[in-house]
Amino acid sequence: MSHEVAFRHIGVIHSPHTDPARTPVQPVFSHGVRGTVELFSAYAEGLRDLEGFSHIYLFYWFHRSAETKLLVQPYLDNSLRGVFATRATPRPNKLGMSVVRLLSVKGAVLEIDEVDILDQTPLLDIKPYVARFDTRTHVRSGWQDQVSDEQAQQRGKNNYPGCT
Amino acid sequence: MSHEVAFRHIGVIHSPHTDPARTPVQPVFSHGVRGTVELFSAYAEGLRDLEGFSHIYLFYWFHRSAETKLLVQPYLDNSLRGVFATRATPRPNKLGMSVVRLLSVKGAVLEIDEVDILDQTPLLDIKPYVARFDTRTHVRSGWQDQVSDEQAQQRGKNNYPGCT
Repeated sequence: MSHEVAFRHIGVIHSPHTDPARTPVQPVFSHGVRGTVELFSAYAEGLRDLEGFSHIYLFYWFHRSAETKLLVQPYLDNSLRGVFATRATPRPNKLGMSVVRLLSVKGAVLEIDEVDILDQTPLLDIKPYVARFDTRTHVRSGWQDQVSDEQAQQRGKNNYPGCT
Repeated sequence: MSHEVAFRHIGVIHSPHTDPARTPVQPVFSHGVRGTVELFSAYAEGLRDLEGFSHIYLFYWFHRSAETKLLVQPYLDNSLRGVFATRATPRPNKLGMSVVRLLSVKGAVLEIDEVDILDQTPLLDIKPYVARFDTRTHVRSGWQDQVSDEQAQQRGKNNYPGCT
């Protein structure tokens, strides 16, 4: 068995973010930032029923992230953390995930809000956000619990690439 | 630019599930089902600080799913739905995602609970579940809102592969 898997691009994400250093670190810091997902037309049929969902997961390739580091300094913190304990981009596989708000579906184009994704990012998958499956309560969030909401909000606004 | 991206396997997920037809459809239907994630040792340093998180996302390859269908009949429903409006496995890119409960980190091995993943599944990425980023309220969940909790719970227990 091969030790790699090849995923094809199934579309492109368009957003106002063209500079990694000025892109919000998470969708929750991106209220009112709109973009579009242009699914390649061959896949359009797979969008049926998606419009009923208020939020969707987008999975994509961090196409502007070249390096891999196992320890990173997250933007919301001053310590070196294991990359798997962060959302930072320099991970072994450059797989990005965002939960965005779905505004409309027109043909093969999705209009979305709360966009923390760079323009021209290759899309790999879309899944619906399902409250029943995806909400967890009584969550411990490790070092993130030591970052206050105000601090996160403030730093998130300063726009630094995916290093939360 | 290539229209594919290659992701390498960074570890293997071990679970009691060896038959797709008898595997729970979601982690929320898998309470008490334990498994392990064996990260390849080259990546072990990236696990630092992960143990502080009660829940983590696992991203993996649906390695037993061969076919692609744009319309699928989800297990929790009787209608044909667009594959992107479901979590079904026959998607264009066989990317799986589960939020599991993290019990312990010992070296490069994670002990996990609420496992809905087949044994020997290749691991692609780990990200922390962060309450601040990942919880959404006022969510509409499309056709899933028409499935009652009891129905979902009951059908989930009947163990059918990832077709929720």
